[in-house]
Amino acid sequence: MYLSLQEILETPKIRRLNIINSISGIKPGNLIGTRSKTGQSNLAIISSVVHLGSNPPFLGYVLRPVGDVPRHTFENIGETGYFTVNHIGPDFTERAHYTSAKFDKNVSEFEACGLTEEYQHGFHAPFVKESAIKMGLRHVESIPIKSSNTLMIVGKIEHLMVPDTAIDEAGQIDLETAGSVGISGLNSYYNLKKIGEFPYARVSEKPDFEQP
Amino acid sequence: MYLSLQEILETPKIRRLNIINSISGIKPGNLIGTRSKTGQSNLAIISSVVHLGSNPPFLGYVLRPVGDVPRHTFENIGETGYFTVNHIGPDFTERAHYTSAKFDKNVSEFEACGLTEEYQHGFHAPFVKESAIKMGLRHVESIPIKSSNTLMIVGKIEHLMVPDTAIDEAGQIDLETAGSVGISGLNSYYNLKKIGEFPYARVSEKPDFEQP
Repeated sequence: MYLSLQEILETPKIRRLNIINSISGIKPGNLIGTRSKTGQSNLAIISSVVHLGSNPPFLGYVLRPVGDVPRHTFENIGETGYFTVNHIGPDFTERAHYTSAKFDKNVSEFEACGLTEEYQHGFHAPFVKESAIKMGLRHVESIPIKSSNTLMIVGKIEHLMVPDTAIDEAGQIDLETAGSVGISGLNSYYNLKKIGEFPYARVSEKPDFEQP
Repeated sequence: MYLSLQEILETPKIRRLNIINSISGIKPGNLIGTRSKTGQSNLAIISSVVHLGSNPPFLGYVLRPVGDVPRHTFENIGETGYFTVNHIGPDFTERAHYTSAKFDKNVSEFEACGLTEEYQHGFHAPFVKESAIKMGLRHVESIPIKSSNTLMIVGKIEHLMVPDTAIDEAGQIDLETAGSVGISGLNSYYNLKKIGEFPYARVSEKPDFEQP
């Protein structure tokens, strides 16, 4: 199938949403945990977490346009400065998916969706007990992306937890062993099967690839 | 394993790079194709492509700090305004990986790594013939992310190609059928196995999850 920009713009809304949300490739399946000043917890599925830097350790995620969705997560981050990022596992993808329903602000998606709040290391925001890999982040900046009317929320990692079985001596995390899932589009979930690992690429050590 | 921010900062560099580059979860494996004004093509592996909007269709990717890496791709985008995003398939992950070696600017990674340039629809930048899913984008803005000293490069999709076998009536792309790969950290590659698909989440239609 080929589509030009004009044809994309003329595609019916739901079909366009599905195509464009899945065309970028696999997305990491994460849950963002927050808690308001008054103690109300919130949990939101998000597929736009992106690595920004290692030293210091920064992650970002993309927030949809103002007014488009309820933004309890964003409000809590604004109020308190803290959030957690928790990998979704294959045994709770459906529960994670339903955190995207528009619950009232006084409803905790943890309770509504059968997931468990966990408080550790004196951190204000709740971790997800069911997640194998999780991080606690402090909000550092929110960057407007004008063209798409979205916001990039940037946080610095203050705590991280990884199962010992899923990380090797070199610090590489095996996402198959950890049972982390990927997302395509708005509602499809994928398991990960490791197929290869290559050394740091140097021009002088490049294998002799044959032209196909 | 638990690490505090202080312990992350004290971790040896390579181990820290590996941990923080893989902690965000699976990343989409893409190749970015560009061509300079004088016709020199360039191809770069990138794992930070992120969906920004569907109407109009926007994608972004994160560029590492100025001076940190050769940025022929970025220079070509600046010169011409165009780039392509091409999914990496399981049969050419090693060739895709080696596009990250620091080739001179007058070397095309297409030729050096045994991949094939393809020009279509009068688009200036080269597509990757071996990729099943590919897009042609026009550069719309570059947004500095101060905290991490990185740039978010934003493009609007002007052309997209998806195999007919990998897209359904609703416009959902099956990344397992398409053979798209995911990346963890800097050098691990994963196949995708679809495990589930759930309807648009509505509070009134939420299943009765039992508390774990």
